Amino acid sequence: MLRLYDSRLSGNAWKVRILLNQLQIAFERVTLDLAKGELNRPEVAQKARFKRIPILELDDGRTLVESSAILLYLAEASPLLPSDSYLRADITSWLFFEQFDLTRALGFPRFFKLRGVYEEQKDKVRFFQEIGYAGLNKLEDWLNRHAFLVDERYTLADLGVFPYVSLAHEGGYEMERFPATKAWLARIASQPRFIPMLEGAKG
Amino acid sequence: MLRLYDSRLSGNAWKVRILLNQLQIAFERVTLDLAKGELNRPEVAQKARFKRIPILELDDGRTLVESSAILLYLAEASPLLPSDSYLRADITSWLFFEQFDLTRALGFPRFFKLRGVYEEQKDKVRFFQEIGYAGLNKLEDWLNRHAFLVDERYTLADLGVFPYVSLAHEGGYEMERFPATKAWLARIASQPRFIPMLEGAKG
Repeated sequence: MLRLYDSRLSGNAWKVRILLNQLQIAFERVTLDLAKGELNRPEVAQKARFKRIPILELDDGRTLVESSAILLYLAEASPLLPSDSYLRADITSWLFFEQFDLTRALGFPRFFKLRGVYEEQKDKVRFFQEIGYAGLNKLEDWLNRHAFLVDERYTLADLGVFPYVSLAHEGGYEMERFPATKAWLARIASQPRFIPMLEGAKG
Repeated sequence: MLRLYDSRLSGNAWKVRILLNQLQIAFERVTLDLAKGELNRPEVAQKARFKRIPILELDDGRTLVESSAILLYLAEASPLLPSDSYLRADITSWLFFEQFDLTRALGFPRFFKLRGVYEEQKDKVRFFQEIGYAGLNKLEDWLNRHAFLVDERYTLADLGVFPYVSLAHEGGYEMERFPATKAWLARIASQPRFIPMLEGAKG
């Protein structure tokens, strides 16, 4: 059985759990408390090439890292990732946009709030928000003209971009500025077999 | 014929040109001067979903954005991107690492130098270097134990991670700290049909 190393707080881990649930793939979950240094447990550390979760462990013990690479691997041959090479590339481009423009910029201010260091990190928050708002504007611009990111239907692109955008307000982002994005978030959260973050993931 | 919209200075554009040359795919090049606002030319702007290059235009006029998504699209069925699903995912994970940990952090300090604003942007440089050095340490750690990133041979992972790492010193990164990475850079630059950045791309 697949084994997923994740954490309660990670949007990157959440996206893999949503996908596994939507594809109805059974898996074992090993949920780490990163604040307690559980990423440094030797059996985990040797699998964590980039010192972060999620990590997917296959039946044969091989592991894969990077949430978006894991999404593309798991969604292969599913309706969420069409076999058409152009559509696949288009979906993949959104996953790279998410990691380049949104994940860090939206995720770190939220992380600072959760850790109670938002005020003391306000220079970094301002810096991240400059990047993050630029990314959110690009997303809003697209969603003003489209209901979904690719092919006018729910695909892996929507799933991958959703988590950090949906959590951005927890890091102080004013999402009222992005009405089309808010409508899209509701649309994605109402897809069949969508699942919320883990309980207790706010603290 | 494929058409590539690029710029002289972009490492993301460079990686696509290396790949096209290594795969011996003919293409037409439209090289924009971004400092002169040529990304805003209407026929370009409508193709630039995320307001950046490179953009790949296919024979039928459809376009693809995001350098790493373009790499994966073009390398399909080539020796640089094996069909084995695990190896593909492993290669893809390095491409995401590059965009998340390296591209912005290594690229912006260099961009500031090229634009002559490095000193006035020194707070941002410090911020980016904190992220960039952490990424470079992860890369060095891997390359201390491996000659290549995936499968112990040259693949799309090496090609995609190479450009910004090779340019990092232009943004003030002290690459002497990373001897295994420097040896790897030389190894990648000596691959068949490798090509340097465009002439004049320093200024």
